[in-house]
Amino acid sequence: MTDRSSWETDDLTALRDLARSFCEKEIKPNIEKFIEQHHVDRDLWNKAGDLGLLCMSIPEEYGGGGGSFAHEAVLIEEQARIADSSWGASLHNGIVAHYLLEYGSEEQKQRWLPKMASGEAVGAIAMTEPGTGSDLQNVKTKAIRDGDDYVIDGAKTFITNGGQADLIIVVAKTDVGEGAKGISLILVEGDRDGFRRGRVLDKVGQRGQDTSELFFDGVRVPTSNLLGAEEGQGFIQLMQQLPQERLIIAVASVAGMETAVAQTIEYTKDRTAFGRPIFGFQNTKFKLAEAATETRIARVFVDDCIVKHLDGALDIPTVAMAKWWTSDRAMVVADECLQLFGGYGYMNEYPIARMWADNRVQKIYAGTNEIMKEIIARSL
Amino acid sequence: MTDRSSWETDDLTALRDLARSFCEKEIKPNIEKFIEQHHVDRDLWNKAGDLGLLCMSIPEEYGGGGGSFAHEAVLIEEQARIADSSWGASLHNGIVAHYLLEYGSEEQKQRWLPKMASGEAVGAIAMTEPGTGSDLQNVKTKAIRDGDDYVIDGAKTFITNGGQADLIIVVAKTDVGEGAKGISLILVEGDRDGFRRGRVLDKVGQRGQDTSELFFDGVRVPTSNLLGAEEGQGFIQLMQQLPQERLIIAVASVAGMETAVAQTIEYTKDRTAFGRPIFGFQNTKFKLAEAATETRIARVFVDDCIVKHLDGALDIPTVAMAKWWTSDRAMVVADECLQLFGGYGYMNEYPIARMWADNRVQKIYAGTNEIMKEIIARSL
Amino acid sequence: MTDRSSWETDDLTALRDLARSFCEKEIKPNIEKFIEQHHVDRDLWNKAGDLGLLCMSIPEEYGGGGGSFAHEAVLIEEQARIADSSWGASLHNGIVAHYLLEYGSEEQKQRWLPKMASGEAVGAIAMTEPGTGSDLQNVKTKAIRDGDDYVIDGAKTFITNGGQADLIIVVAKTDVGEGAKGISLILVEGDRDGFRRGRVLDKVGQRGQDTSELFFDGVRVPTSNLLGAEEGQGFIQLMQQLPQERLIIAVASVAGMETAVAQTIEYTKDRTAFGRPIFGFQNTKFKLAEAATETRIARVFVDDCIVKHLDGALDIPTVAMAKWWTSDRAMVVADECLQLFGGYGYMNEYPIARMWADNRVQKIYAGTNEIMKEIIARSL
Amino acid sequence: MTDRSSWETDDLTALRDLARSFCEKEIKPNIEKFIEQHHVDRDLWNKAGDLGLLCMSIPEEYGGGGGSFAHEAVLIEEQARIADSSWGASLHNGIVAHYLLEYGSEEQKQRWLPKMASGEAVGAIAMTEPGTGSDLQNVKTKAIRDGDDYVIDGAKTFITNGGQADLIIVVAKTDVGEGAKGISLILVEGDRDGFRRGRVLDKVGQRGQDTSELFFDGVRVPTSNLLGAEEGQGFIQLMQQLPQERLIIAVASVAGMETAVAQTIEYTKDRTAFGRPIFGFQNTKFKLAEAATETRIARVFVDDCIVKHLDGALDIPTVAMAKWWTSDRAMVVADECLQLFGGYGYMNEYPIARMWADNRVQKIYAGTNEIMKEIIARSL
Repeated sequence: MTDRSSWETDDLTALRDLARSFCEKEIKPNIEKFIEQHHVDRDLWNKAGDLGLLCMSIPEEYGGGGGSFAHEAVLIEEQARIADSSWGASLHNGIVAHYLLEYGSEEQKQRWLPKMASGEAVGAIAMTEPGTGSDLQNVKTKAIRDGDDYVIDGAKTFITNGGQADLIIVVAKTDVGEGAKGISLILVEGDRDGFRRGRVLDKVGQRGQDTSELFFDGVRVPTSNLLGAEEGQGFIQLMQQLPQERLIIAVASVAGMETAVAQTIEYTKDRTAFGRPIFGFQNTKFKLAEAATETRIARVFVDDCIVKHLDGALDIPTVAMAKWWTSDRAMVVADECLQLFGGYGYMNEYPIARMWADNRVQKIYAGTNEIMKEIIARSL
Repeated sequence: MTDRSSWETDDLTALRDLARSFCEKEIKPNIEKFIEQHHVDRDLWNKAGDLGLLCMSIPEEYGGGGGSFAHEAVLIEEQARIADSSWGASLHNGIVAHYLLEYGSEEQKQRWLPKMASGEAVGAIAMTEPGTGSDLQNVKTKAIRDGDDYVIDGAKTFITNGGQADLIIVVAKTDVGEGAKGISLILVEGDRDGFRRGRVLDKVGQRGQDTSELFFDGVRVPTSNLLGAEEGQGFIQLMQQLPQERLIIAVASVAGMETAVAQTIEYTKDRTAFGRPIFGFQNTKFKLAEAATETRIARVFVDDCIVKHLDGALDIPTVAMAKWWTSDRAMVVADECLQLFGGYGYMNEYPIARMWADNRVQKIYAGTNEIMKEIIARSL
Repeated sequence: MTDRSSWETDDLTALRDLARSFCEKEIKPNIEKFIEQHHVDRDLWNKAGDLGLLCMSIPEEYGGGGGSFAHEAVLIEEQARIADSSWGASLHNGIVAHYLLEYGSEEQKQRWLPKMASGEAVGAIAMTEPGTGSDLQNVKTKAIRDGDDYVIDGAKTFITNGGQADLIIVVAKTDVGEGAKGISLILVEGDRDGFRRGRVLDKVGQRGQDTSELFFDGVRVPTSNLLGAEEGQGFIQLMQQLPQERLIIAVASVAGMETAVAQTIEYTKDRTAFGRPIFGFQNTKFKLAEAATETRIARVFVDDCIVKHLDGALDIPTVAMAKWWTSDRAMVVADECLQLFGGYGYMNEYPIARMWADNRVQKIYAGTNEIMKEIIARSL
Repeated sequence: MTDRSSWETDDLTALRDLARSFCEKEIKPNIEKFIEQHHVDRDLWNKAGDLGLLCMSIPEEYGGGGGSFAHEAVLIEEQARIADSSWGASLHNGIVAHYLLEYGSEEQKQRWLPKMASGEAVGAIAMTEPGTGSDLQNVKTKAIRDGDDYVIDGAKTFITNGGQADLIIVVAKTDVGEGAKGISLILVEGDRDGFRRGRVLDKVGQRGQDTSELFFDGVRVPTSNLLGAEEGQGFIQLMQQLPQERLIIAVASVAGMETAVAQTIEYTKDRTAFGRPIFGFQNTKFKLAEAATETRIARVFVDDCIVKHLDGALDIPTVAMAKWWTSDRAMVVADECLQLFGGYGYMNEYPIARMWADNRVQKIYAGTNEIMKEIIARSL
């Protein structure tokens, strides 16, 4: 499990050291505080930006690091290794920034990406609505053109970074008579009139995340806030970007599995019960052997996906496989590991407890695992 | 699932109505508050006592209800139906009071049971120690005789009702040179000098419960606080009472499964996705059919255990089967149900979310499920 | 596991002794021969009839034993205990005879039931067709009225007792323009012109069973061979009798689980590996504890179903639960037990090997487990 | 699933065509016959030898193909694609020949390898004994030196190619007072006096394989038949060769999974039930999506193992992971696919039925999956 992945270059290993140091110093000691307040400290973003840890896969001309998805993967893995789920960096870096990069006008890119890279602006994307779930074609939020403005009305929920976001990409119907073809993505600044953030949602896990409801009540933005050259491109844009979002989940899941297994090996070798180390029981050994096996297999598969993604060759069904399977097995591994901690596995002071609760949502968001299976079945 | 269990008499059905009404009025509206403060309101105990819902299986001569385990089962089930895990009533009623009834001196019974029945005194039992887990023979807490007193030193953890308990049954070594034979149970009043309650533990679930660490620093109690006629009976007493504790978990697990399935059927019939009720998808139907099947099977098995227990005929391996299997399947059912709620399944405002996190510890406490399998294997 | 079931009276225990002795003497020594020839010796039926082991749940006036389903259950269990799947007695006794009893004319009952009780006539029921599976409404076999005859054309497959049957109840369309309403059950004697038995099917397991294809090529039977007072009742008749067929599978599954667990405990205590009994390894103990638990739970549930069935109170969804769950768990238990036998588990000389292969089809026939889940879901 | 593996060169693809053609023409039409007679036709070996399909990974100087493990992998895969388990080629090519190549004297290699490459001699290795299982240190077969001979006494069982083998590598104790250090490998020719083949074992699956018991009753072989320069090297030799044996199982398992999934997709798209293709049901789609996912993940992992093995960099715990996990998931996939075939899945005329029964032993031989987990746990 200690081998370097095939895609990891020396530069990426150097980045890993930086990312690890940042996570250990700036995040790990504050996780309980973040959970208490249900959001990270706002300046965590700026500190990360100062170190060049934001928007690493965005070209340098827009203030980014000029790197690739591999750079994002390193940061995701290092965050997973400290079992943090508070900081919504992977969404900001790997998703929101890429919508802007891919579909934004030059003006939009110039305006937002440097701020996102510095940490001045935090990004979010508002897809899900109360009652909509994974069924994006039926969003009810509408953006009606009125002169040079769009007037946006609707409500969104489960929005990662919802509490702190300065820029929200809103999925809305610009043509309410249409289904997928009526959908557009529109940028909404966090200080627009009529925009309101609901409370941070009370979740089972990822409690340091400011996941929120967002309300749009006649919010006016200029038509130049449309993402893409024309209306009605939103659904296609979403379909194109979802694979990377799903790969991010897979990367985080594998790194989480590795962390859980490593911590559990250490714990079960340290602690004794009935006169011997817990690791000495055959049940412990078999459960950990099984967990270590699926972790290794998941690592090899996700590394293969990363390599393909860096080559632009990762197809949608394969990333669906990676998303559902790793999120599923990450939960199994966390559950088995938690059990080996006994009562301590249920205490939030042990990372395994938080990992267990944090992981659960990965089977649900970015397309439920049921949706993933539909996607795979269509390809068979 | 709506059939009345074979052990339920008309009297018990009347009790069920009372218990249901109490749970709906006094607990359900306050669950979020209890979770916030990490304990129930202290007067919840008194209100329950006023209604005769405490110590129902304790003889009337000691202030109890003169009923049987069936009465406790009804209350446990009704509490499970509102998905509450804050109130430690089953421990108070079904465990602590029974140690007193079974092993207490007449004076101890007269002193404590009426108060426990009225809600004036809350009970707890302190077994687990930091680092001991399920290995009770190796408890480090000691109770050394000094004249007519025991002097108790040690630390306990994961103590249900630990924050509010007025009476704690402490598992301690009265003979530190012995293993199981050196163990005694000793009553410690909550206001003794040298006794200190640690913080309420930060758990993944059951967050309304005041599960705590307890510290004993030279605590003096009279030797008359020994439970049982002589020292060294503690281990046997524990072995005799653990089956009822495990059956309580099984009863709660089954009722929880029934609740989860019922709520999920309702939810998936109400909510639509992709143009039809979620219940209309074959995957939903199959998952719920599987959950409903295991729920029904668990109900039949636990009812059979209850009937046997009421007859004094429930053996230790059978209750071990009931404990591990129902707690295991309750978790599976909660997990599948949570998934069918989509993102809302991860929100604490939906009971399924709390049930999922609450259930997890049932595979760990009262003897881990691994210990249960050891017990069963020894009987094969 | 040794407790007598609540429904077992002293009379039934006496019957159990008789059935056990019959199975031990007449079947067990011949299983390999039956497998070799792909059918039981024809006179096995007569021997069983002589002992009163056939048609025990048929009234005495028709030559039966005047007993109940409990009598059939005892025989099913005893056959399962010797791990025999060659003899199609439960179908003959518990299914075919009951179609006659329930829907047959007095003349049909008088003609066939005594012969079925003596073993002179072997019964079968022909539902499935090549290409039809569980979808009975779409059977293609037709029985067209021609004067006082039906002329039957079609093909059936997977027919238990197909090779030896003297009487076959054929599911056919008497009205090909109708779906379920066009279906009738018609008695076909094994010596009718135009009736032909195909080869015994080459199955993975149950290889001593003469499961066959049957061909009907212009077979003429008198209209008095119709089962029931009028045409078009077949589908309803099937729906009414399928529950007992499914309960039979559940009874056999549980008894098979008990047998598998008992044999594996014995084997793993006898055999050593790496210097100690295989039972001494924690993995062995845990796997057997799990298998023993699910076996006990299945037993309690199926016993409850039997009691309800004897009272006429077993509903269709509950028996669907029993069928899918016990056949599913029987396979899991057989698989875990086989593994504990190591290489010997794969050898047919060890009953566990045959049980594993025999059990598999129980998840498929009498309505696949997927159909069971559909039935359950409809009831939720 | 159609992508060529990274290790497959154009030469290997050409070999694949040849191997596929051989399997389709020489094996597939004869599988039922092989099963009937419980062994392949003897001249199948010679035909394969004539085409250069034997000993492809043995240097040309010994009559081999001068290829690598990749060549063996191609043949294993193609044999799996026709669902054949009769022909023990992978043992002959990938295991027996390599013991000779690795540890044989020049004379031994010159004598045997060309004959094994031509098909003139069939190889076997005799490890397991009645009662020994995976515990090789405790073999009871002994080879006692007597002048220039070894006198071999003992019995072996579960010996692949046991019925046809011309050369058997026998695991025996040359020093019965020692454990692992007393073990040597000795060549025994199939025509030696005192050597006797027992019956072909009656197995659940792999019924075309002549798996046999072998008896050694005072068999004399010259001491030059010792494999290796000195006695007592046998255990180390076994440990060194077992990884390749386990990798062979993994390769076969993955190819079997791919075959099962492909056949089931085809079947469920062709067959209808309840008026639509079986593939149209969500349960079918989800089960196949799950099977396809684990198949793809297994493929990526095993390909990675092959690449490492070709580089000499495949470590023992990793191959243990590959062996247990792929054999475990191959069984799950076969089981799910069988179910989707309905009753036909249980008929041996459908390859899925045979694959299901054939696969089961892969969890047992070459070290049970439990042994694999022990090996992995030791590495954690």
